[in-house]
Amino acid sequence: MAKLGPSIDELISALRCLPGVGPKSAQRMTFHLLERNRDGAQRLVQALSHALDNVKHCQRCRILSETELCSRCNDDRRQQDILCIVEMPSDVLAIEQATQYQGQYFVLSGHLSPLDGIGPDALGIPKLIEWLDKNTIEEVILATNPTIEGEATAHFIGELARTRNIKVSRLAHGIPLGGELEFIDSSTLSHAFSGRESL
Amino acid sequence: MAKLGPSIDELISALRCLPGVGPKSAQRMTFHLLERNRDGAQRLVQALSHALDNVKHCQRCRILSETELCSRCNDDRRQQDILCIVEMPSDVLAIEQATQYQGQYFVLSGHLSPLDGIGPDALGIPKLIEWLDKNTIEEVILATNPTIEGEATAHFIGELARTRNIKVSRLAHGIPLGGELEFIDSSTLSHAFSGRESL
Repeated sequence: MAKLGPSIDELISALRCLPGVGPKSAQRMTFHLLERNRDGAQRLVQALSHALDNVKHCQRCRILSETELCSRCNDDRRQQDILCIVEMPSDVLAIEQATQYQGQYFVLSGHLSPLDGIGPDALGIPKLIEWLDKNTIEEVILATNPTIEGEATAHFIGELARTRNIKVSRLAHGIPLGGELEFIDSSTLSHAFSGRESL
Repeated sequence: MAKLGPSIDELISALRCLPGVGPKSAQRMTFHLLERNRDGAQRLVQALSHALDNVKHCQRCRILSETELCSRCNDDRRQQDILCIVEMPSDVLAIEQATQYQGQYFVLSGHLSPLDGIGPDALGIPKLIEWLDKNTIEEVILATNPTIEGEATAHFIGELARTRNIKVSRLAHGIPLGGELEFIDSSTLSHAFSGRESL
């Protein structure tokens, strides 16, 4: 690739740390920032460095938070005895937007993946065990992704909860609303068929 | 959308200045940067603020450059009497990568768009006129995009060159290599048909 100078090349390369940004997009972003939107670029520098300095994880649920406890963990009006386990902070937002759920969350920040060296410790499982042991939890909702790793993680945590006599549930799998049978993948369809509900 | 705190929300909003990044992607990028790649985020902060401080425009061809004259304008071995006019710095890179062109460039940084208040001055046309007047230019290659605005810009600059008795050329239009007639849009196909070349 033709070179434009070390600062520009370094910026193109640094932008590739963003998810879904390849060399072409990084180049386009670089030109856009330097050519058309230097104010926006300046704002991005400030927002990013401010967030890097100030955003930590909630000490309780591990979601990204600027305070020691996030707003949800600080909110006494939420139910204390129901705990929803998700992989990513974005899953919390998705559930908050879509449902009326008013319980607690625990963010794993990933899923079990022994080949990548991600074991229970990296997912904060010791902290989760402490939570389950020290508090009265009626139900654990496993809301990990329906992938192989997500299922394995759900299974692992489900066992932890069951040995403590806590009710365990898993998000329902099946045909998405608005989906057409013809275009649903066969494993989802087979799952939905065998798990059919009586009317 | 559920809120995560002012620093995080500001970062999500600041990331939307990047081209092609909507609210969902900005949120995904934010989580990725803060959750998984703080080193990359730190590097991005440094690269971006360094580029903002150091990258200016080449005084001659207006491409982004860290020095007063870019490497191409500084290179005496390139042909001095042929000038290729492009809209964006990325077009220079594309032409450099794809062709053997060894002449000069002039970057408009846009196209004529009177409704958006982009007139000849914003495109550096006065500087281009000075260049055409003070130097011996044999040929001007118009390599603006084949859009309505790009064609209008090319026409405008073509007239400037013709009144100075400079040969003017335009990139050839037609069917892209590897394209299939069936899937080519009709205006391109009609253009290629009427502009057919004899074998």
